[in-house]
Amino acid sequence: MQPGLQRGAPARRRVKRYEALAARVQGMIQAGTLPAGERLTSVRRMSRQQGVSVSTVTAAYRLLEARGLIEARPQSGYFVRASRCHRVPAPRVSRPSSRARVPQVWEVAQQLAEAARSDALVPLGNADPPDALLPAAGLMRRLRGLGREATRAVNYGNPLGEIELRTQIARRMLQAGCTLDAGDLLITHGCFEAVQLALRATCQPGDAVAVESPVHFILLQMLQVLGLKVVELPAHPRTGLDVDALAPLLERRRVRAVLCTPVFHNPLGAVIPPPRLRELVRLCATHEVPLIEDDVYGELGFGLERPPVAKAYDPDGWVLHCSSFSKTICPGFRVGWIAPGRFADAVRRVKFVTNFVTATPLQLALSAFLRDGAYERAVRRASRSYATTALRCRDAVARHFPSGTTVSDPQGGMVLWVGLPEGVDGAALYASALEAGISVVPGHMFSAQGRFRNYVRLAFPHPWSDALGAAVAELGRLATGLLPS
Amino acid sequence: MQPGLQRGAPARRRVKRYEALAARVQGMIQAGTLPAGERLTSVRRMSRQQGVSVSTVTAAYRLLEARGLIEARPQSGYFVRASRCHRVPAPRVSRPSSRARVPQVWEVAQQLAEAARSDALVPLGNADPPDALLPAAGLMRRLRGLGREATRAVNYGNPLGEIELRTQIARRMLQAGCTLDAGDLLITHGCFEAVQLALRATCQPGDAVAVESPVHFILLQMLQVLGLKVVELPAHPRTGLDVDALAPLLERRRVRAVLCTPVFHNPLGAVIPPPRLRELVRLCATHEVPLIEDDVYGELGFGLERPPVAKAYDPDGWVLHCSSFSKTICPGFRVGWIAPGRFADAVRRVKFVTNFVTATPLQLALSAFLRDGAYERAVRRASRSYATTALRCRDAVARHFPSGTTVSDPQGGMVLWVGLPEGVDGAALYASALEAGISVVPGHMFSAQGRFRNYVRLAFPHPWSDALGAAVAELGRLATGLLPS
Repeated sequence: MQPGLQRGAPARRRVKRYEALAARVQGMIQAGTLPAGERLTSVRRMSRQQGVSVSTVTAAYRLLEARGLIEARPQSGYFVRASRCHRVPAPRVSRPSSRARVPQVWEVAQQLAEAARSDALVPLGNADPPDALLPAAGLMRRLRGLGREATRAVNYGNPLGEIELRTQIARRMLQAGCTLDAGDLLITHGCFEAVQLALRATCQPGDAVAVESPVHFILLQMLQVLGLKVVELPAHPRTGLDVDALAPLLERRRVRAVLCTPVFHNPLGAVIPPPRLRELVRLCATHEVPLIEDDVYGELGFGLERPPVAKAYDPDGWVLHCSSFSKTICPGFRVGWIAPGRFADAVRRVKFVTNFVTATPLQLALSAFLRDGAYERAVRRASRSYATTALRCRDAVARHFPSGTTVSDPQGGMVLWVGLPEGVDGAALYASALEAGISVVPGHMFSAQGRFRNYVRLAFPHPWSDALGAAVAELGRLATGLLPS
Repeated sequence: MQPGLQRGAPARRRVKRYEALAARVQGMIQAGTLPAGERLTSVRRMSRQQGVSVSTVTAAYRLLEARGLIEARPQSGYFVRASRCHRVPAPRVSRPSSRARVPQVWEVAQQLAEAARSDALVPLGNADPPDALLPAAGLMRRLRGLGREATRAVNYGNPLGEIELRTQIARRMLQAGCTLDAGDLLITHGCFEAVQLALRATCQPGDAVAVESPVHFILLQMLQVLGLKVVELPAHPRTGLDVDALAPLLERRRVRAVLCTPVFHNPLGAVIPPPRLRELVRLCATHEVPLIEDDVYGELGFGLERPPVAKAYDPDGWVLHCSSFSKTICPGFRVGWIAPGRFADAVRRVKFVTNFVTATPLQLALSAFLRDGAYERAVRRASRSYATTALRCRDAVARHFPSGTTVSDPQGGMVLWVGLPEGVDGAALYASALEAGISVVPGHMFSAQGRFRNYVRLAFPHPWSDALGAAVAELGRLATGLLPS
């Protein structure tokens, strides 16, 4: 199915000089090498030292300023801001029970999703890209450009999806370490449909599926409706799924499939490091258990490199890789894809009886959007915005939440996982936040076992603003008010 | 869910004068009142008699000529053609076994669908609208017109579907006798997705579903992949499902749902008459069994009135009505709908975990297309073409197929159901037709019991042409060659 796969390290995306410089300085700040209050090397000197232009250094410093890491002081230059981030510890590694359970989250999840969507609330609940970051005009221009292909656009297309789009996606996936071609891909109505097809193609109702703990509640909703049980596995806030904990489950044939988000996990923002990820794929292949990979956030990294996906280490096709354009450029187009590996026939069957094929015109417009580089620009613009907001949001949590709070350090995506001090209930914070006009998601939603009761998830899709800052401060005050006396 | 429903008879669609006149004359020809060879009343006299203009009569006669019912003879006027149609009997009512079976049609159906799609064949296999009948330019114009709503078009829309489109569909469904409103509808990625959601919302794997015999093989494929069994019910070639045969099944709780195509059944072209349809709905409601109605061909009638659908007689919401724009104007848009009645919550759940919502921009373009009347024009144009081709194709079968052949008399849609004389194998005819460069579908595909071995289905989506005529003649020769000696 996918010959000659899995050779290389992930391709480096073309990074502008100022971004690279900013990333290096940011690394030094975060490591504490450049402590709070430290004056940065002047623009001219940095330019000479690094052999780059003055405007490159200026752009890099401006980017770090936008991220809230440094501040300009009149006549004095740039200084490292007094961030409290490094003093807030990460949440602990989760330790869920390994019993299989039927998720029962539907009703609450629907209500929360409803609440998270309300326009009247400060939006820290919903993790969907805001209008401001979607390249709407450009996409509609590509759609208008289909006039010459009108007949093709309104009739049924290729059952696998339009070849132009599959080709563009295969090329793009090189950056994630995959050497697929168009024939390895099937276009779907979004990533969620891809994951659903993968589950229906590999599991029967009553089967158990292994997931990370915490796990996005929307996946729990899907598992519930499909009649599947879940086994939750420990996950590290920075390195994701605990692969060692999976091995005994597979040995005892306790799960039928593994459903996992190796890159920019929601809600942790974790990335499984390449050696562990390779080991995860090897383990699944050894036990002949399908690994369903949800990579919907994979393009939204804050760093210079696109982390490799599980599919990059999958010579035998046990990985069903799922993704879409819904978190990057066009949720409303409902276009995603699956690279189903050895399960291609079964996935095609389920896709066929679900809705035959995916809508033609949107695929054609998207392939043009990818081909001419507009996609790359839109994704980079969005990722830059999320990277900045992540730092600002994290800093605001560090400043305003009570002592004892823990917070994740996401490497991509648009969510923060916040652990509240002992005795503070996430659902209580959710409720008082809602009264104060702020939407968040309580932590217990992210487990079929009702775990994470002292957590909340903050989503930060919107560009940082004073209103968001004030809302995080208010959340901190509310959390403080909930401390047991 | 649907208050104040089910009052009226179906609304009469606005019919042009010449169409009404042509329909009356056609009725007289088909009833034998005007026999073959009869000279029609002259245009001028008909104009005086009917109190319509000369051009109206001319248009009516031209339409009947296009349908192959009359022919112009120089200096003599119009004459009824020597059609053999009325001499070919209809196929018999089916008498399937009432045992529940797991359909096993996937592989063959896929191969056939593949073969039916080949561009190299004379297309009598596939029942999809041809490019020539799709209003591609008009639809793309509406899509281009979305520029002002670009942001809305690329982001997630309403989980039920865009309100404008649901409103237009509800208005349109008045013609089929339904008084629904937008809140009763959920937009899906096509009718097939709607049917799939209905089945998943009402049945569990292993359950049995009642269907007409014959039944479109694509529904058998869906039932097979969903792990459902089928019980086949007798169906009349003109009046469809034998409702009396259903009653004992429901009484003995042998089926979990009924899946049925009351209007323009594929392959029969049958329509369940309103009193029987009302009885069918009543029966299902009494036994609390959901009735899943596939109305995807409902707009493609040859007559003056749009037959009412089961949903028109459903005060208690036991009917899940499914349809789409895929057989009328835009298969590639993948937009359909379901009116799920009392199963709305369950259907929404399954839709949510399938792909959240349906693509936004296509819904917006379609609502504009319906609103300004372009849909009505496109559907009428297509139906007229199918009505003409149906007569021509049926006439050609009557002329060229061996004695002992039976043929359906479809009232809408784009397929003919042809029974071959005793001893002629439909699969053998399929195979020799394929060799002769003609695609048809063998009858045994339309049953999970392998019935209808001496049937073939001819689809006639394409406007009638000499090539189609020659292909039907060739099929007749091939069938004759297969007669037992």
